[in-house]
Amino acid sequence: MIVRPPQHWFARLFVWHGSVLAKISTRLLLNFLLSVTVIFFLPWYEALGIKLTTAPFSILGVAIAIFLGFRNSTCFARFNEARLIWGQLVIHCRSLLRTARTLLPDNAQELHHLVNLEVAFCHCLRLTLRRRKLDNVLDRYLTRSEMARVMNSNSPCNTILLIMGEWLAARRNGLSDILFQTLDQHINQLAAVLAGCERIANTPPPFAYSLMLHRTVYCFCIMLPFALVTDLHFMTPFVSVFISYTFIALDTLAEELEDPFGTEDNDLPLDALCNNIEIDLREMNEEAQKPAKLLPNRHYQLT
Amino acid sequence: MIVRPPQHWFARLFVWHGSVLAKISTRLLLNFLLSVTVIFFLPWYEALGIKLTTAPFSILGVAIAIFLGFRNSTCFARFNEARLIWGQLVIHCRSLLRTARTLLPDNAQELHHLVNLEVAFCHCLRLTLRRRKLDNVLDRYLTRSEMARVMNSNSPCNTILLIMGEWLAARRNGLSDILFQTLDQHINQLAAVLAGCERIANTPPPFAYSLMLHRTVYCFCIMLPFALVTDLHFMTPFVSVFISYTFIALDTLAEELEDPFGTEDNDLPLDALCNNIEIDLREMNEEAQKPAKLLPNRHYQLT
Amino acid sequence: MIVRPPQHWFARLFVWHGSVLAKISTRLLLNFLLSVTVIFFLPWYEALGIKLTTAPFSILGVAIAIFLGFRNSTCFARFNEARLIWGQLVIHCRSLLRTARTLLPDNAQELHHLVNLEVAFCHCLRLTLRRRKLDNVLDRYLTRSEMARVMNSNSPCNTILLIMGEWLAARRNGLSDILFQTLDQHINQLAAVLAGCERIANTPPPFAYSLMLHRTVYCFCIMLPFALVTDLHFMTPFVSVFISYTFIALDTLAEELEDPFGTEDNDLPLDALCNNIEIDLREMNEEAQKPAKLLPNRHYQLT
Amino acid sequence: MIVRPPQHWFARLFVWHGSVLAKISTRLLLNFLLSVTVIFFLPWYEALGIKLTTAPFSILGVAIAIFLGFRNSTCFARFNEARLIWGQLVIHCRSLLRTARTLLPDNAQELHHLVNLEVAFCHCLRLTLRRRKLDNVLDRYLTRSEMARVMNSNSPCNTILLIMGEWLAARRNGLSDILFQTLDQHINQLAAVLAGCERIANTPPPFAYSLMLHRTVYCFCIMLPFALVTDLHFMTPFVSVFISYTFIALDTLAEELEDPFGTEDNDLPLDALCNNIEIDLREMNEEAQKPAKLLPNRHYQLT
Amino acid sequence: MIVRPPQHWFARLFVWHGSVLAKISTRLLLNFLLSVTVIFFLPWYEALGIKLTTAPFSILGVAIAIFLGFRNSTCFARFNEARLIWGQLVIHCRSLLRTARTLLPDNAQELHHLVNLEVAFCHCLRLTLRRRKLDNVLDRYLTRSEMARVMNSNSPCNTILLIMGEWLAARRNGLSDILFQTLDQHINQLAAVLAGCERIANTPPPFAYSLMLHRTVYCFCIMLPFALVTDLHFMTPFVSVFISYTFIALDTLAEELEDPFGTEDNDLPLDALCNNIEIDLREMNEEAQKPAKLLPNRHYQLT
Repeated sequence: MIVRPPQHWFARLFVWHGSVLAKISTRLLLNFLLSVTVIFFLPWYEALGIKLTTAPFSILGVAIAIFLGFRNSTCFARFNEARLIWGQLVIHCRSLLRTARTLLPDNAQELHHLVNLEVAFCHCLRLTLRRRKLDNVLDRYLTRSEMARVMNSNSPCNTILLIMGEWLAARRNGLSDILFQTLDQHINQLAAVLAGCERIANTPPPFAYSLMLHRTVYCFCIMLPFALVTDLHFMTPFVSVFISYTFIALDTLAEELEDPFGTEDNDLPLDALCNNIEIDLREMNEEAQKPAKLLPNRHYQLT
Repeated sequence: MIVRPPQHWFARLFVWHGSVLAKISTRLLLNFLLSVTVIFFLPWYEALGIKLTTAPFSILGVAIAIFLGFRNSTCFARFNEARLIWGQLVIHCRSLLRTARTLLPDNAQELHHLVNLEVAFCHCLRLTLRRRKLDNVLDRYLTRSEMARVMNSNSPCNTILLIMGEWLAARRNGLSDILFQTLDQHINQLAAVLAGCERIANTPPPFAYSLMLHRTVYCFCIMLPFALVTDLHFMTPFVSVFISYTFIALDTLAEELEDPFGTEDNDLPLDALCNNIEIDLREMNEEAQKPAKLLPNRHYQLT
Repeated sequence: MIVRPPQHWFARLFVWHGSVLAKISTRLLLNFLLSVTVIFFLPWYEALGIKLTTAPFSILGVAIAIFLGFRNSTCFARFNEARLIWGQLVIHCRSLLRTARTLLPDNAQELHHLVNLEVAFCHCLRLTLRRRKLDNVLDRYLTRSEMARVMNSNSPCNTILLIMGEWLAARRNGLSDILFQTLDQHINQLAAVLAGCERIANTPPPFAYSLMLHRTVYCFCIMLPFALVTDLHFMTPFVSVFISYTFIALDTLAEELEDPFGTEDNDLPLDALCNNIEIDLREMNEEAQKPAKLLPNRHYQLT
Repeated sequence: MIVRPPQHWFARLFVWHGSVLAKISTRLLLNFLLSVTVIFFLPWYEALGIKLTTAPFSILGVAIAIFLGFRNSTCFARFNEARLIWGQLVIHCRSLLRTARTLLPDNAQELHHLVNLEVAFCHCLRLTLRRRKLDNVLDRYLTRSEMARVMNSNSPCNTILLIMGEWLAARRNGLSDILFQTLDQHINQLAAVLAGCERIANTPPPFAYSLMLHRTVYCFCIMLPFALVTDLHFMTPFVSVFISYTFIALDTLAEELEDPFGTEDNDLPLDALCNNIEIDLREMNEEAQKPAKLLPNRHYQLT
Repeated sequence: MIVRPPQHWFARLFVWHGSVLAKISTRLLLNFLLSVTVIFFLPWYEALGIKLTTAPFSILGVAIAIFLGFRNSTCFARFNEARLIWGQLVIHCRSLLRTARTLLPDNAQELHHLVNLEVAFCHCLRLTLRRRKLDNVLDRYLTRSEMARVMNSNSPCNTILLIMGEWLAARRNGLSDILFQTLDQHINQLAAVLAGCERIANTPPPFAYSLMLHRTVYCFCIMLPFALVTDLHFMTPFVSVFISYTFIALDTLAEELEDPFGTEDNDLPLDALCNNIEIDLREMNEEAQKPAKLLPNRHYQLT
């Protein structure tokens, strides 16, 4: 699904699009300018009483690296869990349809309705998570009365699940309790997917934590040139920018991953996932009309 | 749900409310004053036999950083698990109601009773975990006789689940064993939520562990100015406060996250979660009266 | 359940009871004396060919810190898993009783028997894990014939589960297969709790691992004064004891957590957990006689 | 299954095939040549204004090591999860067949058909994940009409599961709903295996993350000789190559593990796993024709 | 089950049997001799152009410690998962027998057959994982015809599960579909145990990974004396051996844990686990003949 940029180790060093480097270049430039200024003021340095050595920065650097490492694994865990939950969505959308096709009397119209409800649920989840407008997408899949219920609801996704439950309840006569429960279970699983996504979206990692690390990283990078200049002199800007890059890039990336449902470069490709689910379900139900497959743009990014 | 403070990297450096910095400012001030005193006494320093270098502090600093990193991930795991369990609460409250509406004969009154029991369970859980008084909240949802049973119980939340089980048992005639068991399963899941919350609230991480780290961090910060002063002289207070900030802030934050059900800035917004569940359930049951939605205060905090 | 010692950061620095500091004070005193001796012999130092710098100790210190961090997370994971399993015990004890009360004809006598079997199982598990005598506790809950079977068994807890299974089998006529299976499932879950506890108790982390770290930590602390003395002179004992405290305390705590079912300060409060389960079950079954609630002692410890 | 190379610690030092060393030898050679060049230019060094010390590299080295450690555990987690999912495939292929043999009337022909469908699913999954051509393998297991459906599908593996579901639906008359559901559950589990593999294959870890570490590692290795040369002089190339080996090898290995379904040395042996499943299923169904067992090649590698 | 060696912190320092120290003593001796040689050649040292400082070794040491820490947690996770899976074996062996005794008509002969099959499965699993001969153990539990089928099979453990499934299928008449499925589920769980063990045994962590770390650790230890000798002189051998011990011991232990089913000191006590399961099952089925309990040898080791 996702085409990857050049694989050769040398070519990789020069990738620009989609990299964090592009995003933080201004901050690194500021760091560079600060370093140059520090070199310029070195003669007045001691007179100003500024006296910094690398030793305390070594303690700090390691401590910050450890805490950043922890923050990264926390944020990546959110990204990963979000993807896992969307994987559950794929599984239960397919299994619900497959089982429904096996168990319910052949009625293409009704199964088409179910497919529409499932696809509407996926799109509604995607749009809610990204805080977009729902109506111009959902009206492709829902009837007018369903549309009205969903748009007036406090929790549109949950309302679509309610409608799906009503669809199933209307077909309960042809099913034994065991088979009814089997299908109902899949709807419960979709409800678990919904609640899981809401949980990730609504409960960011403790704000004080990211704030503290953010502050520590930036203060560290600001003080760094002062500590390096006596040892490195003219090499200060290069080393300072390099170290700052390592720390600031990780902090920035952690911030991106913190909200995996966003639309930044490294967020989950929800559009592509919804598109894929729709193609799969339409094909499983032997429908003629399938949407075209979304492809990555020329910077290898899917949205 | 949670509105986040300024997103720009520069603006973020100056956020005050909700940050740990506000909480530990006195301790950092003490550290600053100690550093100034140390500079002042530097001439008598050698005479007093005090002779500290940064080398052993480098070993200690890294060791403490590693152990703090571990403590943070432990405490964050508690926070995260607590949120997961409340996510389960959301899932099973909704699914129990949805399935009950499908399976039980249309009787708005009885379903209204079920909704009340579920909402009472959520509030009771929230209030028990925060050690608050129950009666003035629960009497909105429970009948007088239920109220009496709950208030006299050793474990009020468990008693509400018992009442819920009795509600279901009274409706067992209209249900096959399979469907009865389906609904009963959801009550079992709510019981698992209850036991999970009790577990987190009643079993803090080993006390000796947090005590040891607490002591190590503070001793380290007290000895730090003595080790830095010979190298850094007038810069000592700034570097010392910066390093102390990094370590003390993490220790303090870990302590906050340790008890995720508290009411400090970075604890779980249980009030908002209960409010959300109530709105969802009322809406699913097509009830007219819904509570107003809780919104974050002007410091972006939900309780 | 567990009352926590002083919360103020300053008061916390002076807590003694329940801390690891109390336990390792002798070892730290030995380290202090060694350091003093080393200072005393400093003049003869070079003549003896002893020449140590902090550089290799820096490498070692960081390496040991990383490995101790890993060992701590391993041992804490055991503690945590043990608590999780006891949480499962709480859940299934309650759910088994709640479902039995719903499904079985009202017969207070028989349910009282079930409650007794469940409580006996909990106490038996607790006493087996702590290698205590069973008979003077279990005879409060079991009939004479049950007592005989349990005491002659190779695995008393498993025998109680067998008796519980027989209790259920005797009531199978009034139950459909589905409901019988529902109740039987809870007994299976109690069997999983038993096997989980046995697993943790009988399979400590690889012995060579804790041995190696133990040795490394103590050798490091013994050699430390020799490495510090040339730089720090009279400050050696203080810094050496401080670093030793950090490392030895963590090693000792890891050893305590390794066996979470023990009776040391930081082990799980199994007595209180059993007591709680008994109170809950008696209350759920509306029995008059309930045991008194266990409270923490004046050092905030529960057993 | 996988024969391991020499176990003796000394012999192990000289293994070449399958090691990362073979793969990155060119890059290490470049690093060696750069180091030699740097020694050669040392006299002009100061005149060029190049002045680097090891102190900032120590900070960087530790930070990069921590981030590489995190990246490695992330990539290894993908490898591990991929293997777990293929383990699920083994479990459900066997259990589906075993249960089908127990429950369905003895009809060797039909069970042979099921075995063929299961084996086709495994091979189809393997070939799709490795982006290989499907038709010349699958036509050994599928009928012509099945083959046509599968090859025209957007998701061939999912189509095979649909056919498997139809096979089961055609046998529904002889089965009670409970037993039908039992078998259907195994097909659902195979669907979960499929979606799990798709998830891993289609969602690499955030690209910016690996890019950033890749860049940092290589920049670090390029700057290293300049920092080491003043201290180590003629030893620079050896130490520089050794440090570079440690960092570059880990980065390269992480990249290999990132895509566990590839065909590089350290990827999962999907061919051998499919071969094993086929032998097991044929044997369980008492079929005469079994494929030969795949054995590792002379470099101990399975594909 | 496992008696632990001396618990006192001082006595523990001198444990020899079962420690990794015993295993790697030759390698440490070689390191000691190398260090002595290096001291001897010190005068010619500079002339040979060898010039090493501890600074780059500090970077390397920390990096290797981090990677070793990761490798250890990976290998320990395998050990832990293997133990978990054997815990599942215990659970399902007991639960299958307990449920079978409840549900099937009293027929001691048939239940004895089931016990034999279960015990045979455990022993077969143990012997296969340890690549031992099966026949002289299994013929104690299996009939002659079963024995023939098992010994001719490509996967003996799986064949025993097939026979167990046939035993259950032969008793299907007396059981409703729900109860049949309950028992069958336990056999499926045993199949999951089998596949889990196969997965761990057949998929070691990527070989290149352990190779790389192995090489890095040994090169580091070989170069260490050269770097230490200028600073430490006569103390070099002691410090060098101590550091080497820390790193080599961890590498060696990781290798032992990598294959948890082996027969080295720190591997899982599969013999004792099988013995325990057999005693439990015989006792639960009230059989007279039970095997004697396996006890640890005088070095506190179980096999």
